[in-house]
Amino acid sequence: MFARRMQRLSSSLIREILALTQAPDMISFAGGLPAAEVMPDWIDSTPPADWRQYARSEGEQALREWVADQMCAVGRRCGPEQVLITSGSQQGIDLVSRLMVEEGSQVLLESPTYLAALQNFNLLGASYLGYAVGADGIDRDGFVDALAQNPCMAYLNPTFQNPTGYCYSEEERQFVARQLDDAGVLLFEDDPYRALNLDGVHTQPLVSHIEKAPWIYAGSFSKMLMPGLRLGYLVVREDLMAPLLRLKQTTDLHTCRVSQWQLLGLLQHPEFESRLAHANDFYRHKRALMANALEAHFSDIAQWQTPEGGLFFWLTLKQDFAGREMVDRALSEGVGFMPGFAFYPEGQVRHNTLRLNFSHASDADIGIGIQRLAALFMADQG
Amino acid sequence: MFARRMQRLSSSLIREILALTQAPDMISFAGGLPAAEVMPDWIDSTPPADWRQYARSEGEQALREWVADQMCAVGRRCGPEQVLITSGSQQGIDLVSRLMVEEGSQVLLESPTYLAALQNFNLLGASYLGYAVGADGIDRDGFVDALAQNPCMAYLNPTFQNPTGYCYSEEERQFVARQLDDAGVLLFEDDPYRALNLDGVHTQPLVSHIEKAPWIYAGSFSKMLMPGLRLGYLVVREDLMAPLLRLKQTTDLHTCRVSQWQLLGLLQHPEFESRLAHANDFYRHKRALMANALEAHFSDIAQWQTPEGGLFFWLTLKQDFAGREMVDRALSEGVGFMPGFAFYPEGQVRHNTLRLNFSHASDADIGIGIQRLAALFMADQG
Repeated sequence: MFARRMQRLSSSLIREILALTQAPDMISFAGGLPAAEVMPDWIDSTPPADWRQYARSEGEQALREWVADQMCAVGRRCGPEQVLITSGSQQGIDLVSRLMVEEGSQVLLESPTYLAALQNFNLLGASYLGYAVGADGIDRDGFVDALAQNPCMAYLNPTFQNPTGYCYSEEERQFVARQLDDAGVLLFEDDPYRALNLDGVHTQPLVSHIEKAPWIYAGSFSKMLMPGLRLGYLVVREDLMAPLLRLKQTTDLHTCRVSQWQLLGLLQHPEFESRLAHANDFYRHKRALMANALEAHFSDIAQWQTPEGGLFFWLTLKQDFAGREMVDRALSEGVGFMPGFAFYPEGQVRHNTLRLNFSHASDADIGIGIQRLAALFMADQG
Repeated sequence: MFARRMQRLSSSLIREILALTQAPDMISFAGGLPAAEVMPDWIDSTPPADWRQYARSEGEQALREWVADQMCAVGRRCGPEQVLITSGSQQGIDLVSRLMVEEGSQVLLESPTYLAALQNFNLLGASYLGYAVGADGIDRDGFVDALAQNPCMAYLNPTFQNPTGYCYSEEERQFVARQLDDAGVLLFEDDPYRALNLDGVHTQPLVSHIEKAPWIYAGSFSKMLMPGLRLGYLVVREDLMAPLLRLKQTTDLHTCRVSQWQLLGLLQHPEFESRLAHANDFYRHKRALMANALEAHFSDIAQWQTPEGGLFFWLTLKQDFAGREMVDRALSEGVGFMPGFAFYPEGQVRHNTLRLNFSHASDADIGIGIQRLAALFMADQG
């Protein structure tokens, strides 16, 4: 009865687990939820009357200008006419997928990678050219080999990568950009965690190193401010704006204006910068608590590196484990986590990894939850 | 470089024309814009803190309950678990298209029909089985013939149809529902104009007459309240919720929470009902002005019926005209309108129709604009 593509659309494991972690007293390390404690409460009340009407699909001009200014400030020269405001950065992934991916397309990506992007690519019938990324850096040979196999685009998350937390070095960024330029392959850089730079590392966007290849950059206001606004953006090479705009029109005509108005109020608030700094103080504190708890309970069975930004620890265990079964066992102990297997492209799945969010649980719950989880994995690995 | 589907994605004529009608002093009959004069200014300020976080893809429970209550009140028994809140009703069309339509699919629809839905179906590679709808009612034989040719679904807009303004009679609704039930073909009822019922005619939704066939109903808050909120909904047969929810997740995770909060405030406002009544008084006044102007200036060259609801007059001229060229000539005279050709499925295009919105222009501009437009068409037809 349904279109054939629906056979390729699996349920989202993370949203299933998130729903289960809504139960009271559940300690959740599963989601990518920014902390409610650091979200501002400055929401402006009523937008001007003319903001109640339909709008242009591109988004509000003042917000496009803000985004273009930010991009210029981090080294990617562009103008507001290259900015498309989206209904969350997930919509950016959806639009770019529909622009570039069809049955038979090969997407070059990190392995592991963002699972909700995989879901979109799967729906459209993609196959994958993956290269490893992790604590030791990126697999340059793997990247070059993958690039040689004619991908339709490279989907990369070089800054505090989800799920590994890895941040490409400046030299790796230049290497990847040069290779993409030489091959003329479109770069789709997904960069939702940029503002959560906890150690002040260098994070110039990959697209700012691109000279010849087509490029698309996706940003988000969810992690920086609040997900409930559902606002993100694409910044794109000039020639890519028109087709993406047409796709945006078919999708939802334009992004919600009331939330764009409120976002502008938040961005222009005199305490905006200090609030971001305060948020990162908060996240550093949470990260330290989880680092300590992991050191105390997981060091015999797992390896990890403390992430320099973003919201996640990524653990590699000594042995494989039954992912979904361990999730259910942990949930029955009142703890949610994300098994790593869901983040790998088909054919490259590993079963000894897990992702832990450090921003959401309370201070006390971080210690309690990690201890419970470690006990489960110790028994399983032992 | 792009996926092949992009060759099927034409620019949206209506959004092109809408952009052109933004110029100062332009009199626009082109869009489907509800009148800013009747939009309430009761927007509530700050949502509760927990509404800033990510949400479930289904939408906010209180809003789902409001929608389910409304549907029950108009004869379609359902519960809130059958309601999916969307980022405008256009997203509902996009989601249902992706669920049902693929290359080779035939969509049964009215001819003419809503042009932005055609754009979505085109993108996915659909062909069309159209049946005529207009002042004389629906073409029942045409409907039966089309239904016999194995459509993947029927996309219908029975209440104040866009663009014709036609409202199916109760008997036509029962006829169509019975045929769809017998054929087991999915009904996708698009119903954005329900609240703009200017003559109090009977408009029980078509889905409320369906007994066996699968059904999906799309509603909108844009015409009833304000488009800038970008909020609509789908109400669906129980078994269709899970696949649509998965598609929604891949599209934007969930709909903007801040605007859902504000919408709830609008719906629960003590003056909500009286404001709707006031809005319809306003639209009746506008409709009368346009009816008079048309009578004065167009009666020698066109035929039309006064619509019982919605936002449009639909004119059939005595002779064909060059649609895009006449649009440009009218714009150079300071008047925007929509040529009819854009509303027909491929193979059934007619070139002697046009759509005129009566809700947006000022009282004085309605008379001036219609007079100018009539002069152009008189010269062209003569």
